Amino acid sequence: MDSVLRQSKAMCPFMRQATAAGLRAMSTAVTPATPTAVSPCGGTMSKLQVLARRCPVMGKAMAVQSARMGHTAAGFPSVAAKAGMATFHGHVKAGKAKLHTTRPQEAQAVDSSVFPGHEKVQLPPRLPAKPAVSAGPAATTRPTTHTGKFDYEGFYNHELEKKHKDKSYRYFNNINRLAKEFPRAHMATKEEKVTVWCANDYLGMGRNPHVLKAMHQTLDEYGAGAGGTRNISGHNKHAVELEQTIAKLHAQESALVFSSCYVANDATLATLASKMPDCVILSDSLNHASMIQGIRHSGARKIIFKHNDVQDLEEKLASLPLHVPKIIAFESVYSMCGSIGPIEEICDLADKYGAITFLDEVHAVGMYGPHGAGVAEHLDYEAHVQGRPRGTIMERIDIITGTLGKAYGCVGGYIAGSAKLVDTVRSLAPGFIFTTSLPPAIMAGARAAIEYQMEHQGDRRLQQLHTRAVKEALQERDIPVIPNPSHIVPILVGNAELAKKASDKLLQDHGIYVQSINYPTVPVGQERLRVTPTPGHTKEFREELINAIEGIWTELGIKRTSEWAAEGGFIGVGVTDAAPEEPLWTDDQLGIAEAARTLLQAAKAEKDSAPFTGGVTERLLEREMEGLRTASVAA
Amino acid sequence: MDSVLRQSKAMCPFMRQATAAGLRAMSTAVTPATPTAVSPCGGTMSKLQVLARRCPVMGKAMAVQSARMGHTAAGFPSVAAKAGMATFHGHVKAGKAKLHTTRPQEAQAVDSSVFPGHEKVQLPPRLPAKPAVSAGPAATTRPTTHTGKFDYEGFYNHELEKKHKDKSYRYFNNINRLAKEFPRAHMATKEEKVTVWCANDYLGMGRNPHVLKAMHQTLDEYGAGAGGTRNISGHNKHAVELEQTIAKLHAQESALVFSSCYVANDATLATLASKMPDCVILSDSLNHASMIQGIRHSGARKIIFKHNDVQDLEEKLASLPLHVPKIIAFESVYSMCGSIGPIEEICDLADKYGAITFLDEVHAVGMYGPHGAGVAEHLDYEAHVQGRPRGTIMERIDIITGTLGKAYGCVGGYIAGSAKLVDTVRSLAPGFIFTTSLPPAIMAGARAAIEYQMEHQGDRRLQQLHTRAVKEALQERDIPVIPNPSHIVPILVGNAELAKKASDKLLQDHGIYVQSINYPTVPVGQERLRVTPTPGHTKEFREELINAIEGIWTELGIKRTSEWAAEGGFIGVGVTDAAPEEPLWTDDQLGIAEAARTLLQAAKAEKDSAPFTGGVTERLLEREMEGLRTASVAA
Repeated sequence: MDSVLRQSKAMCPFMRQATAAGLRAMSTAVTPATPTAVSPCGGTMSKLQVLARRCPVMGKAMAVQSARMGHTAAGFPSVAAKAGMATFHGHVKAGKAKLHTTRPQEAQAVDSSVFPGHEKVQLPPRLPAKPAVSAGPAATTRPTTHTGKFDYEGFYNHELEKKHKDKSYRYFNNINRLAKEFPRAHMATKEEKVTVWCANDYLGMGRNPHVLKAMHQTLDEYGAGAGGTRNISGHNKHAVELEQTIAKLHAQESALVFSSCYVANDATLATLASKMPDCVILSDSLNHASMIQGIRHSGARKIIFKHNDVQDLEEKLASLPLHVPKIIAFESVYSMCGSIGPIEEICDLADKYGAITFLDEVHAVGMYGPHGAGVAEHLDYEAHVQGRPRGTIMERIDIITGTLGKAYGCVGGYIAGSAKLVDTVRSLAPGFIFTTSLPPAIMAGARAAIEYQMEHQGDRRLQQLHTRAVKEALQERDIPVIPNPSHIVPILVGNAELAKKASDKLLQDHGIYVQSINYPTVPVGQERLRVTPTPGHTKEFREELINAIEGIWTELGIKRTSEWAAEGGFIGVGVTDAAPEEPLWTDDQLGIAEAARTLLQAAKAEKDSAPFTGGVTERLLEREMEGLRTASVAA
Repeated sequence: MDSVLRQSKAMCPFMRQATAAGLRAMSTAVTPATPTAVSPCGGTMSKLQVLARRCPVMGKAMAVQSARMGHTAAGFPSVAAKAGMATFHGHVKAGKAKLHTTRPQEAQAVDSSVFPGHEKVQLPPRLPAKPAVSAGPAATTRPTTHTGKFDYEGFYNHELEKKHKDKSYRYFNNINRLAKEFPRAHMATKEEKVTVWCANDYLGMGRNPHVLKAMHQTLDEYGAGAGGTRNISGHNKHAVELEQTIAKLHAQESALVFSSCYVANDATLATLASKMPDCVILSDSLNHASMIQGIRHSGARKIIFKHNDVQDLEEKLASLPLHVPKIIAFESVYSMCGSIGPIEEICDLADKYGAITFLDEVHAVGMYGPHGAGVAEHLDYEAHVQGRPRGTIMERIDIITGTLGKAYGCVGGYIAGSAKLVDTVRSLAPGFIFTTSLPPAIMAGARAAIEYQMEHQGDRRLQQLHTRAVKEALQERDIPVIPNPSHIVPILVGNAELAKKASDKLLQDHGIYVQSINYPTVPVGQERLRVTPTPGHTKEFREELINAIEGIWTELGIKRTSEWAAEGGFIGVGVTDAAPEEPLWTDDQLGIAEAARTLLQAAKAEKDSAPFTGGVTERLLEREMEGLRTASVAA
């Protein structure tokens, strides 16, 4: 290492002039209290970083590197550790963090590093006086064998041990979801049955007869695989028809299908932002790993804005020259907390500042809007019911991405947008060009699923009613649900070990499968159980779940909502003065308002004078279930 | 732009000291004739680059950038153009280039850039005296609307126009491969039938009854989609069993399945090389786009070695410290030219220099080796027939990657390696973690395909015999096939427009579908038709193909082998003094030697005194076809 330093000193005038003491002083993190040194991403910066950011060479290099490392939460936890950055265990405590106004702590930790990724340069460790920024072990841990060669197996071992140590090592559960017994599944043996409460097959489309029929037929007629890339024998009518259907769904000119939405997000953002001269990406702090990867792969400058904070976004947009291309990347439903992005406001800002919008509707397609096109469609519910997409918010979005693998029950992902945009991505994105097409049967099944959900409202309405029922029941038992307007039911545990224990107990003691969500998918201290009701999760399943959770909460002593409230609340849980989160699906849209009137009238007629309180959803569900399942869009 | 330069001059001591003239002088490319300035990757470097490479900060930044741009051929053609780099059209001419000893010209062009990707810094253009390095239009072409905002649609238009102009714009053919009429397909309408001669469903497994049965059954029992990521409800017995089968196939401890092998290569290389301290990747110059992307995404240092050149590789390995982790990334069968990597020699070098091997067997799995495990298995054919994988070359490979979407007829990709390695990738790779699992039916179908091909030799032997027959027939007609030892039949055209015309004519006039392969998939001047025979391409189909090609070659005046020979040969075609390329599948392994003896004896017995010349393959095929199809591994 010393030789590298010597060499660099000999070559670089800057390094030549710098003294060891000077470098050490410059590499000290400036505390966030010093306003000028606060990074636009919210973290602290050293003087060296401030200098480097303004260098035309280093600035770009740092953008590439920090984009690469910016979201440690997305699966590179040990990079932070390797580069000597702060880990959370020391300084992240359950407190008054607000889910919608702060970015996850891990990203801050990353931002506070000096020279991310430059382990070669043995810069002096941070001053021990700054406890949040620990000294880096950096490249001192390189394992070698007795022959002096790198010890690869030792390295893998070391990486895995780190995962075990910080409780982020993942044990996969063997879950075989049974099409004919949805939402039941068997484990390793067929006898061992469980109820799945955490799948993303939100509407049970994986067992929808129309979908399965389309797949069986296509399989027989066109075989198993596509046989090539889209350019070389893998393009077919299934792709053409699926893309036409998707474009129609989103009221866009064109669409393009990818192996997955991970690939769609990654390839599209990487391609566009690397191609457009000086492109800047403005990225919501809670964006999915696939977008974070796409941004980092683009090498473009990334500016993170606070989750769902349009004011913060506007400040950042305003700081950029008008003529510079900008992509605002965000989601409609954030899958781990269930929050919903301010789509219209972001479209307005995009118009004002000359940006384009990149909206990930992965957890919303099939689930919102009268045709299941997502939250953007839902925002103009009536216009879309009436088949008037012109001028709606959905039409204003420049790039919509979605998945065929969640509410549509299959696999694959896509983008939709203008014809030229889609053609550009089609022509330039390696992740699209150089990969085998999805199988014809998958594309046919996905199209059947989209078309079915374009015509039927029942599944998503029932899903929403079940969601309400689960949330209400948990609330009644003082079980802490992170409030949100969507179909996600995130139950706060707040501790990695407890979350895993709760999940294990649910499975082993109650035959209920709810995977615990731990770091790095959520920040340390925000561990949760993420419950996803479906139309198949009827009352009996629900009661089992609620009773099981109730028992486990008591058994393991996990905090209740009232306990979080006593501490002042945390990420929305137990925040007593907070405005209630109104569900995006209104009572009217769900038919609850009308059904309630009917129920009340019936009660009156029967001279049942008992006041109609509580359990509205429950009673509605009993009456409406069958009717809702087959309700058409026009209904 | 001037303000950026001013700002950088103010901030960076190096820029501050430099004069415009000095920078211009330093940015002049040193000619390759000056040995000290030749880049390890074979391109030319400017003095500024030489300086920058040795800087601990810029060196890393440049590695990131050049990794990102290093393989322009892989789908980012316009990056080179944008950054003002040389394009090929001016200086790549059909000549004596040797396929296996020179790296593609595009990579050289990239290497000769100053500050790749730094369009912001308007460095002085190269001296006009160096015609190979043109001045860069760089960021001067930024389109804006009348409002002063970036013109996104204008930008897309511009990108697409460039594709049209350089003839690299891709028109997809609508090809619907019919399972029951393999290798036939219909186009947009069902009446319009064609024969597919370029799919990668090499063995027709997409219509194999065992595969289809497994898929139908799984679809009925477990539904369409997996319903989640591997960690959250998407892990199941299909994944477990498929990964066990793959590990067994490759005689490795463990395996991991991905959405595609594009994702497998990208995610694995990016994860490992970004995690291992100071990792260097040595990459074959003809590696697939997915590996190139993985390398660039890792941010690690990349060293390109000449295609299949172990001497060049050894020189590059020897230049690196022993203790530094190194990954040698290469392929077994290179899909566009059919060359085969020197696997054993590379394993030896890896051992000697403390590197690990990353072998992409995508075009070889199912196709080589007695169990279809690929070329690595084929090299120890007898040992594997006898079920003794210990100590074989295949077992020595550290990371084998393969696809389920070509010879196995489905979709998806995988890696196989040591348990710890696979667990590390499983635990750390975002492209694996944050994506929906493959559908159960796909995994079940893929497993059925692998198991079938582990037990049956017939398909791949017949495929090899058909390949030989096609190559022989083309040779007889003086049609230029790029010589290679594999199942790929690359027919050289050498001109983008002619290649597309030939492909269009085949389709329109003869009902034969062979996609033309143009830049950027192959270098300009090396355009070809890539023919892939299968077990289903029987004599009648072959004769149709050969006659059609013969006619088109005459009609369009495309060069014959003899014409290439008259020019001294090109990428192996018409090289008169070249040693013949022996097919990897020997006569013995194909049963040809024995069958030929039988034929000869029969001929003698019948007192047929006519000499047994020519058409051996043809006569064998007629006799052996049925027998071969069902031949078991033990046969």
